[in-house]
Amino acid sequence: MTHPDLHSLAHQSQDLLAAVRRDAPLVQCLTNFVSMNYAANAVLAIGASPAMVHAEEEAPEFARFAGAVVINIGTLSSPWLRSMLLTAQAAAEAGTPWVLDPVAHHATAFRRDAIQQLLDLEPAIIRGNASEIIALAGGHSAGKGVDARDAVAQAEQSAHDIAARRKSVVAVTGEVDYVTDGTRAVRIAGGSPLMPRVTATGCALSAVVGAFAAVSKDDPYVAAVAALSCFGIAGERAAVHADGPGSFAWRFLDALAALGADCLTRESPLR
Amino acid sequence: MTHPDLHSLAHQSQDLLAAVRRDAPLVQCLTNFVSMNYAANAVLAIGASPAMVHAEEEAPEFARFAGAVVINIGTLSSPWLRSMLLTAQAAAEAGTPWVLDPVAHHATAFRRDAIQQLLDLEPAIIRGNASEIIALAGGHSAGKGVDARDAVAQAEQSAHDIAARRKSVVAVTGEVDYVTDGTRAVRIAGGSPLMPRVTATGCALSAVVGAFAAVSKDDPYVAAVAALSCFGIAGERAAVHADGPGSFAWRFLDALAALGADCLTRESPLR
Amino acid sequence: MTHPDLHSLAHQSQDLLAAVRRDAPLVQCLTNFVSMNYAANAVLAIGASPAMVHAEEEAPEFARFAGAVVINIGTLSSPWLRSMLLTAQAAAEAGTPWVLDPVAHHATAFRRDAIQQLLDLEPAIIRGNASEIIALAGGHSAGKGVDARDAVAQAEQSAHDIAARRKSVVAVTGEVDYVTDGTRAVRIAGGSPLMPRVTATGCALSAVVGAFAAVSKDDPYVAAVAALSCFGIAGERAAVHADGPGSFAWRFLDALAALGADCLTRESPLR
Repeated sequence: MTHPDLHSLAHQSQDLLAAVRRDAPLVQCLTNFVSMNYAANAVLAIGASPAMVHAEEEAPEFARFAGAVVINIGTLSSPWLRSMLLTAQAAAEAGTPWVLDPVAHHATAFRRDAIQQLLDLEPAIIRGNASEIIALAGGHSAGKGVDARDAVAQAEQSAHDIAARRKSVVAVTGEVDYVTDGTRAVRIAGGSPLMPRVTATGCALSAVVGAFAAVSKDDPYVAAVAALSCFGIAGERAAVHADGPGSFAWRFLDALAALGADCLTRESPLR
Repeated sequence: MTHPDLHSLAHQSQDLLAAVRRDAPLVQCLTNFVSMNYAANAVLAIGASPAMVHAEEEAPEFARFAGAVVINIGTLSSPWLRSMLLTAQAAAEAGTPWVLDPVAHHATAFRRDAIQQLLDLEPAIIRGNASEIIALAGGHSAGKGVDARDAVAQAEQSAHDIAARRKSVVAVTGEVDYVTDGTRAVRIAGGSPLMPRVTATGCALSAVVGAFAAVSKDDPYVAAVAALSCFGIAGERAAVHADGPGSFAWRFLDALAALGADCLTRESPLR
Repeated sequence: MTHPDLHSLAHQSQDLLAAVRRDAPLVQCLTNFVSMNYAANAVLAIGASPAMVHAEEEAPEFARFAGAVVINIGTLSSPWLRSMLLTAQAAAEAGTPWVLDPVAHHATAFRRDAIQQLLDLEPAIIRGNASEIIALAGGHSAGKGVDARDAVAQAEQSAHDIAARRKSVVAVTGEVDYVTDGTRAVRIAGGSPLMPRVTATGCALSAVVGAFAAVSKDDPYVAAVAALSCFGIAGERAAVHADGPGSFAWRFLDALAALGADCLTRESPLR
């Protein structure tokens, strides 16, 4: 663990959650069809305002006044990729932080090419599962589809390499999450084994990372830590009364919305 | 309040709900990706038959035998806009009533242009939040994204102006809803503060307005009133046992499906 | 009933469920926007790994290493149809079984033409409601939209004709399901009247049929029977505590995930 002070990091996270709820930042998501509804509901539950605006005709314009942009390649196609590239560029020009979710980027030639173009537009934060982060660093991942088949611990070095090379914050999520900006690093516990059994949970997290990035433009590292902490705590709470993935999904939204003003310090999942 | 007789309006609404359940009209929705599932479930819950048919190759043809058409610009793009225009035109020619949901139409140049083209095709009913209706009338709205940042009361004059000019019914939804056709007007109470915290609730309402419009072609004003009344009552009921937005979302569908044969008269939310 | 031995068929189904959970096969779905989330969650709940990969640029490539492909024309458009045809062809070439869900294929000229092209690419399994199967065999169906307006019993002959002519397994779902490969046939009970009141339940079933087809490439008949049996039992269980379509939807996912190692033999819904 290279982070000097978990206590202070938890307090900074807590302050960001308060800021999200106070400012209700506009989070523009260019995300996949599977996750659109669940991600929008997660962004609302945390207290921000989701805007699923993706078309080339307007997405770059929108990025100039959005609080943050989230780009997720889950159900990629050529028109969407074109719009994602223009929107990421507009975000960069406007100083709007943007988050990249490289869903299954190693699965096909089309994705492998797309992800390189997106990476070159300098996302503030990259959020993926272990298989995606390992493959992003050029390693050999066990995953074929959208599900992780590697453990987060195996992806920590990859995350560090990408963060250092790309000057991005990298967040790897799984049983215990790992966040690094190449200098600082922290692990985040909590969550539930039911989370990977509900589709779009990871995509929803990337959208919520965007909500925090919008209120923490100068420090995307803390934004990622805060968002993952919220998911860790809410996931653990939702699992208590869940009878399976169906009941977990909505209990998780309730738990996100119910996160209290001191949960991130009192029950800090930082390790 | 300019409506002469709330009692009679409640009875007409109740009759329309019975007609929806008896006829199960086909409601064609060209709606956004975020709301498709929830809107289809709401249309099913009220007793109608949803058909999410949007492609240019078939949507205009479908509009000729649908009971009503609902057009929602939430996740607009050029191919969808082209299809929406052709479908609205086909609906108009066939005498199929169509409902317009002008989601965030003031957010970008692309939307501002699109909404003018759609308005010219004479929707029977326009359903939006206060910020959208104020902007539609040419006023200055506080909203930037999809969420309303204005109160319904501030939008009543705008709604009246649009209704009178466009010969459309205009329904503004929020804490207390307002429906007018330029001559008649009514307020509708009920609902819950959780409704704007669940994405696509407004879009689902526009789809359900379509279900009522299909069985009330000669009086879209009553159709809008009936649909909003159902949402008001079901929203209030769903909130009783909801612990947050996640549990509200499914309880609301249960409540819509459970609306009884006399709820709109016994618990009339008309004001 | 022409199936010689329901007892043995139930055991084969149970073995396939164990195989799905052991192998977690990759199920590629080109499905409609309404069902994407729910279908992915159903595939996860049964124990497989969903991949919603649809773009022409990558879907055919993906089909070569997917365990099965599911093609559903619910929200069809020209770019999607082109990709579906290329993907079905790639699946056929690679020996990947593919499942066809001919949603409302008789509603418009565009669909009627599309479905013929897809049928010619030899799906291993066709899953539809009674109206769709009757229309597929050239009969006159009562359905206009996506909902069935005919009973399964009226579609059994049509199913048999298609299966014999196309050398496909045909599964007709409704109050009591019917599955045939032209030689064998079986009826499957269970389920709940709430199932047609939840949108995308049928689409989710087609996706789950794909999960079973992936682990039973040599016998798609048993794959279809196993998937429908799981839906029959889970649907019955979910209905016990459901208060309406909203609560049924998530309880059904919980019930799918909770199906035990001997449910398909102990509570066999085969008739």
